[in-house]
Amino acid sequence: MSELINTLQWRYATKKMDPAKAVPEQTVARILEAIRLTATSSGLQPFDVIVVTNPELREQIKPHAWNQPQITECSHLLVFAAWDNYTAERINMMFDLVNDERGFKNEGWENYRQMLLDSYTKRDAETNFQHAARQAYIGLGTALIAAAEEKVDCTPMEGFDPAKVDEILKLRERGLRSVLLLPLGYRAAEGDWLVDLKKVRRTRDEFVIEMK
Amino acid sequence: MSELINTLQWRYATKKMDPAKAVPEQTVARILEAIRLTATSSGLQPFDVIVVTNPELREQIKPHAWNQPQITECSHLLVFAAWDNYTAERINMMFDLVNDERGFKNEGWENYRQMLLDSYTKRDAETNFQHAARQAYIGLGTALIAAAEEKVDCTPMEGFDPAKVDEILKLRERGLRSVLLLPLGYRAAEGDWLVDLKKVRRTRDEFVIEMK
Repeated sequence: MSELINTLQWRYATKKMDPAKAVPEQTVARILEAIRLTATSSGLQPFDVIVVTNPELREQIKPHAWNQPQITECSHLLVFAAWDNYTAERINMMFDLVNDERGFKNEGWENYRQMLLDSYTKRDAETNFQHAARQAYIGLGTALIAAAEEKVDCTPMEGFDPAKVDEILKLRERGLRSVLLLPLGYRAAEGDWLVDLKKVRRTRDEFVIEMK
Repeated sequence: MSELINTLQWRYATKKMDPAKAVPEQTVARILEAIRLTATSSGLQPFDVIVVTNPELREQIKPHAWNQPQITECSHLLVFAAWDNYTAERINMMFDLVNDERGFKNEGWENYRQMLLDSYTKRDAETNFQHAARQAYIGLGTALIAAAEEKVDCTPMEGFDPAKVDEILKLRERGLRSVLLLPLGYRAAEGDWLVDLKKVRRTRDEFVIEMK
């Protein structure tokens, strides 16, 4: 069994965190770095990660996330927020950055830029947001592993009112919309109903279909 | 720098694979196991992974995926296919499995089942599919790390015609819709334009917003 599989077995959606234990900043930095390196469609990285440590903001978010206690018990609340749209400016920003970093322009890459500009900017904002939001989920996959490798507990959450979170964090003004919450912290010594329960997944034969 | 960050730096979207090199079955099994253990919304695991080794099927898929050569050069083509809908049968299957594996019924868990039955089965199939599709992207995040830890190359692909892939693999008959392709293989010694180019991401300060 690989180390990664042990890591995935170790993690669980922590239901109660110890508010007295904060994740060290260097550890949070490594988790964020892993998310930053995650692959996204066409390399556009169409989401940002907001790190909310401010206690008042987290208190304001909590009632809009089913009052889940981890929102305020955690030390760092990550908010994955996707671009509200793909614009020419955003697409050009990323292609220009690639050219700058690589030190040259490539014809194939420039043709690809043009294709994305032609297709993405003609689609409606909601379609583009939905596509961007999916990319944030790849980042979540990375984040869950990165946290677990650091023995940091976390709880991926879709159960919240995105419009309210956007309002509280003023995300729409930044052209962003909240997609996922991920509190980072450490499990409480007592009071977590899930911590000792078996992780359940469909069996390999139920989950995988082979076409030989 | 952590091992995970090295792993993420190592991987890239491989553009040319060596068709003479097959990924060993035990290695593929470990990658699939990592995907299987991935967290999903409410633990429903609303997607399957199809492993297509059949050469004819891959030849049929290729023209519907911009003729990307990795489709046929890889040894194992993974297809992430999401549930076409959330049905009472599927939700009950997963909650029953959890009860069976844990050996008891929990009132909170049963109330949660009822809440999902009430809400999900009233939504239209397309909304439910879109939600299920997002979960497959968490699995992709895991798969990219799992492959790289095994020093297996891969290429995440959204650029294909899902309706055609569904037809070729007869996925709709299984209540599934293709969402992502992930060829697994080994990079070719020559001919990959991307292999030596720098991985480019927005800087940490561009990607992360702190709210203290």
